[in-house]
Amino acid sequence: MAEEKKKKVSIAVFSGDMDKLLAAFSIATGAAASNMDVSMFFTYWGLRALKKKVKTGQSLFGRMLGFMYGGDINRATPSKMNFGGIGRWMFKKMMKAKNVPSLADLRQTAIDLGVKMYGCQMSMEVMEIPKEKMIDDVAECVGVAFYIEHAQQADVTLFI
Amino acid sequence: MAEEKKKKVSIAVFSGDMDKLLAAFSIATGAAASNMDVSMFFTYWGLRALKKKVKTGQSLFGRMLGFMYGGDINRATPSKMNFGGIGRWMFKKMMKAKNVPSLADLRQTAIDLGVKMYGCQMSMEVMEIPKEKMIDDVAECVGVAFYIEHAQQADVTLFI
Amino acid sequence: MAEEKKKKVSIAVFSGDMDKLLAAFSIATGAAASNMDVSMFFTYWGLRALKKKVKTGQSLFGRMLGFMYGGDINRATPSKMNFGGIGRWMFKKMMKAKNVPSLADLRQTAIDLGVKMYGCQMSMEVMEIPKEKMIDDVAECVGVAFYIEHAQQADVTLFI
Repeated sequence: MAEEKKKKVSIAVFSGDMDKLLAAFSIATGAAASNMDVSMFFTYWGLRALKKKVKTGQSLFGRMLGFMYGGDINRATPSKMNFGGIGRWMFKKMMKAKNVPSLADLRQTAIDLGVKMYGCQMSMEVMEIPKEKMIDDVAECVGVAFYIEHAQQADVTLFI
Repeated sequence: MAEEKKKKVSIAVFSGDMDKLLAAFSIATGAAASNMDVSMFFTYWGLRALKKKVKTGQSLFGRMLGFMYGGDINRATPSKMNFGGIGRWMFKKMMKAKNVPSLADLRQTAIDLGVKMYGCQMSMEVMEIPKEKMIDDVAECVGVAFYIEHAQQADVTLFI
Repeated sequence: MAEEKKKKVSIAVFSGDMDKLLAAFSIATGAAASNMDVSMFFTYWGLRALKKKVKTGQSLFGRMLGFMYGGDINRATPSKMNFGGIGRWMFKKMMKAKNVPSLADLRQTAIDLGVKMYGCQMSMEVMEIPKEKMIDDVAECVGVAFYIEHAQQADVTLFI
């Protein structure tokens, strides 16, 4: 019953950018640590945050997309000043120097704190990223109706 | 009275990117189909989603903007990997192959389901896109006070 | 007591883009003018909106970042069609022609209306932007827990 009264956060994670994912996972872990019930819905580019380090895509376009936007969460690049990967390396250095946890660490903390992670069925199909190519901690692959159901009961709703 | 108790969604659509508009209209139609009351406020680049396929702009700058960011919802390009239009074509192909509705179809569904669409007066003036250049289904052109009024009564608020 | 019942807005400002900051400050000032209680949390690129016109950064990377993404709110460029600064100049021209307030004016209005502005401690550390390099009107530099605390009590939550 106390469980029922937990405040809820619903985060739609559209972006796969390193900096936006850092913001998303920081908010998610912070909210979970504050005893809130947190759900993250990953869609489009955000799906990278849940991918294993494997190839994806079946059709020509799907394979191209998998090639160009491939890899796992560690391949995420900052939304600005990436300069072909230099920016990512630079940010990782700066984060390490300040003892800020990496994206992969933040995701693990979110999992450990019970943050629920869902993949958006439709964008998984369009981008040809099947569930078996995603990390085992993905709770479910769901449709927009499922997201709406969660969002309308949430106290905090964000689109990142 | 039952009408009064409908849950509400307020979506500020700032982006004119194909993929973000797909997310915005998917959430809007999904919520409307779940019997929620949905309002979308289009501002800045998001205005493209409501434009007819016509030229816009009066001043030199306005015409330049209309030329470079012209066209209607079908001209929206993905936020990543557009490569001068190839990305848009590729995404459309992939969506069609998976029977995912196009952006224009999704917008029509939103209209049919009673989603209310508003244009932001201020950005329409700055970008020189008058109401007569927008589709007839735009409910009204409104100021920020109108948006705030709606948002504070909404159960789900998103900025896309 | 009437104070207690004010509706609340919580805006996480991640972006430092001119157009997105315009949207953020328009919503913030609009909400404050409608007698709402508004808090803005600036993080990552959004920190530029609070910076003085000074150099930042200590480490090599920090100085590089300060050099490339330096300056104050007036240096913010549009998210699209900047073309090395031409877009910013063009937008400023168009806004002036339509009597739309500049970003710096909007920020001042927000301050005058009592909008509270917070800097995100973690991204300030990563990006090497200390509090003394930020405008005096920044209320506090806070952690994610502080943001969560505010967001869960807010009626409108946005991530921009």
